[in-house]
Amino acid sequence: MPISLGELATRFGCELDGDPDTRVGQVASLSAAGPGDLGFFTNSRLASQLVATRASAVVARDEDAAAAPCAVLVSDNPYATFARIATLLHPPAPVHPGVHARASVDPDARVAASAEIGPGAVIGAGTVVGERCVVGPGCFVGPDCRLGDDSRLVANVTLARQVTLGERCLVHPGAVIGADGFGNAMTPEGWVKVPQLGGVRIGNDVEIGANTTIDCGALEDTVIGNGVRIDNLVMIAHNVHVGDHTAVAAMTGIAGSSHIGARCMLAGQAGVVGHISICDDVVVSGQGMVSKDITEPGVYASSFPVEPVRDWNRRVARFRRLDNVFDRVTALEKKQS
Amino acid sequence: MPISLGELATRFGCELDGDPDTRVGQVASLSAAGPGDLGFFTNSRLASQLVATRASAVVARDEDAAAAPCAVLVSDNPYATFARIATLLHPPAPVHPGVHARASVDPDARVAASAEIGPGAVIGAGTVVGERCVVGPGCFVGPDCRLGDDSRLVANVTLARQVTLGERCLVHPGAVIGADGFGNAMTPEGWVKVPQLGGVRIGNDVEIGANTTIDCGALEDTVIGNGVRIDNLVMIAHNVHVGDHTAVAAMTGIAGSSHIGARCMLAGQAGVVGHISICDDVVVSGQGMVSKDITEPGVYASSFPVEPVRDWNRRVARFRRLDNVFDRVTALEKKQS
Amino acid sequence: MPISLGELATRFGCELDGDPDTRVGQVASLSAAGPGDLGFFTNSRLASQLVATRASAVVARDEDAAAAPCAVLVSDNPYATFARIATLLHPPAPVHPGVHARASVDPDARVAASAEIGPGAVIGAGTVVGERCVVGPGCFVGPDCRLGDDSRLVANVTLARQVTLGERCLVHPGAVIGADGFGNAMTPEGWVKVPQLGGVRIGNDVEIGANTTIDCGALEDTVIGNGVRIDNLVMIAHNVHVGDHTAVAAMTGIAGSSHIGARCMLAGQAGVVGHISICDDVVVSGQGMVSKDITEPGVYASSFPVEPVRDWNRRVARFRRLDNVFDRVTALEKKQS
Repeated sequence: MPISLGELATRFGCELDGDPDTRVGQVASLSAAGPGDLGFFTNSRLASQLVATRASAVVARDEDAAAAPCAVLVSDNPYATFARIATLLHPPAPVHPGVHARASVDPDARVAASAEIGPGAVIGAGTVVGERCVVGPGCFVGPDCRLGDDSRLVANVTLARQVTLGERCLVHPGAVIGADGFGNAMTPEGWVKVPQLGGVRIGNDVEIGANTTIDCGALEDTVIGNGVRIDNLVMIAHNVHVGDHTAVAAMTGIAGSSHIGARCMLAGQAGVVGHISICDDVVVSGQGMVSKDITEPGVYASSFPVEPVRDWNRRVARFRRLDNVFDRVTALEKKQS
Repeated sequence: MPISLGELATRFGCELDGDPDTRVGQVASLSAAGPGDLGFFTNSRLASQLVATRASAVVARDEDAAAAPCAVLVSDNPYATFARIATLLHPPAPVHPGVHARASVDPDARVAASAEIGPGAVIGAGTVVGERCVVGPGCFVGPDCRLGDDSRLVANVTLARQVTLGERCLVHPGAVIGADGFGNAMTPEGWVKVPQLGGVRIGNDVEIGANTTIDCGALEDTVIGNGVRIDNLVMIAHNVHVGDHTAVAAMTGIAGSSHIGARCMLAGQAGVVGHISICDDVVVSGQGMVSKDITEPGVYASSFPVEPVRDWNRRVARFRRLDNVFDRVTALEKKQS
Repeated sequence: MPISLGELATRFGCELDGDPDTRVGQVASLSAAGPGDLGFFTNSRLASQLVATRASAVVARDEDAAAAPCAVLVSDNPYATFARIATLLHPPAPVHPGVHARASVDPDARVAASAEIGPGAVIGAGTVVGERCVVGPGCFVGPDCRLGDDSRLVANVTLARQVTLGERCLVHPGAVIGADGFGNAMTPEGWVKVPQLGGVRIGNDVEIGANTTIDCGALEDTVIGNGVRIDNLVMIAHNVHVGDHTAVAAMTGIAGSSHIGARCMLAGQAGVVGHISICDDVVVSGQGMVSKDITEPGVYASSFPVEPVRDWNRRVARFRRLDNVFDRVTALEKKQS
């Protein structure tokens, strides 16, 4: 259903540079867009694409508007405005209320009549599924879980047990939430399993990526704040706390009982050891290893970029002889003095 | 069902400092515990919580007993004793024998009458499921597998084919065992797949984490010893051997044909290259990269902790000029001599 | 069905050193092989196994043939020839055409009569499943997907939506293809989700490992070339392009919009940041971090091998004092001049 630029400008608080009656029906990249499409421009490296775009309109900053060959919805945050318009033009699939004939709902579960339970889905005892939720095909929602209104489990998601999900959460396929934490006590005869009895509490508006795992707590809960964004293949161990609006990129691991502040960003393949705290507004770059508390906001790093292997190996060899160079410098200093 | 401290002391070989008739019904953290709860104390940093706990009893070392405001079950290994008592107080969910109407069991499979096969589970030809096993909802157990007595696949677990699981194993959701190893032969026309014909043999009392993958062997089997503990999102490649009672933390990867000894501990995000051996009793710290044989027990490391990115970038630049400082020192030495 | 060495030699273009009427029925490792088995030899470290093998025949290079105590199929690329013969002797499980009674196929999907749809599988609207495809138990194939002829999803695979798979592709359990990319726009109120509207296009003869995730594109498609091999637990983010015949080992992550060339090899746990390009024929070693364009073919590295932790910690301390040694050398140079 195409929408006029005038309506979009009003609804999303943009100034409009162009004809308010022009209509757009979908979003597209600058290079692929055609008539009826809306693009966006934020990255000056794509300036040549902006100039050449065939889109009917773009979302852009004021200072970039002049370069556009089409109508411009002017925004201080073009990417966010574009995201909101794209959500309007391309809403999530509608919910089809009802329990599929091949789903299994425990008699002691409570599923809202407006919720959709897909084929092969299983809902355990004591679980509550809120209004307009979607539990997709093949999902397993174990006992004593709670899905807030408008939350969606796409497909093949597992909530093992005792998982509370807030409202408007989105969980991608293969994610496993509420499996046992990795708790083992060493004895001379081997490991003894430490029962994992806590649950997982997840706030509102949280998105959890494909094949990510969030373990239940040992005695108390693992806690994910509101508005948190978690990418694919992330590991969040038992009793971790993740603060509101923090984003965790793919393949990052957070070990047991660590606390991550609000509005942090952990880039891909980062690692956080157990039992530490990271304050609010910390950015950890890719493959960074956080091994003790971080108490100051800022950007932190610890990974080396690749080099040709011959160069790299020579540097590693030098690195291993750092003692040698320090010793030689000390010897030289002694002689000189 | 609450149990008296006297009975717990007898059963678990603890000295009891307190009233043997006091009963505890559940475990809890020191700070959350109330009357009827059992806590434990091992970490001196939590001493203030011990002093203030409202638990009816705690498990603690002899030297810490005096500080507790409640009864104490005295143990040399309080964490293990606590784990055992917690297992008694909070046993795993009971097994409900029978094959769910929506499960699919191949006519050539053999499932013990005492086993539970959940909705949507599929059991392949030639597979044997032992006494009191649980194959949870959505699990796929392919052909020619064998589950030892009392083993459990929680939900959405895949045993692709030819996987032998010992007794009392516990496999968490999303784990995939017995998928093809990554075997490819290079040719001028591209990769040729090398059929992966081995299986996976897993010992007794093994726990395998959510979304972990353990590939089948190429010609012979991949082998996991007794009492091994594997966390979430771990990768164990074809023909790897993991020794008894070794623990592998989340996101660690072990490449093809490597052998890990007994009682090793691989911390999170560690990597082991292919075709090497690690002896018994080796600890590899987080993000450590093992690229050749380790023949001596001990702790090994190779990761840098994060620093503020400006400091880090300066260090990386220095690192890349290590040749320069070595050369300059050599020049200075020549001049001096 | 055993095959004569004469026939194998003809079919695979090998010279035969031995009796053409000897038959082999299966492949085996040199050490486990017995009469009727075929082994292969490429690794000089296994020379003693070659000499002692009880195999009826081996595939080997001309220069190694003399050492074999059995017939030899001589090949310039013994591993590839062995792989092809092994595929002939151990073909994939046959396809059993038909839709299982417990599968759910949308009325607007089109499934070839020769395809096999397993129990619990779900096929969405607008999806086309080609000839002789296998959609295994528990797989979810969402709307608007296309599976080329002879492609197989083993079990519990998810194609979320709008995924095009070429011919003869093999997708292992737990893989998730076409889930939303990680697109979020920051605002003062928190993250705004950027709808992910692209799909995933995958070429012919691609193999995708267990629990790997390949996200759909944001506006345009994520693209995987022909003959690509992807191992387990790999992350391929939105709008990545992977060139033909590239191999990506386990736990490697490629961030959004990066382009990987043809015939590259990314070893385990490697990371590629977003929005960069890697040219053809690049090898990145294990745990390597690629943070900017690579324009020259070659081998690249950036990981340190483990050392005993005491040595490692001393080196890290030295590393952190690199400024100091540079400064001291400069001071010495000044004094000398």
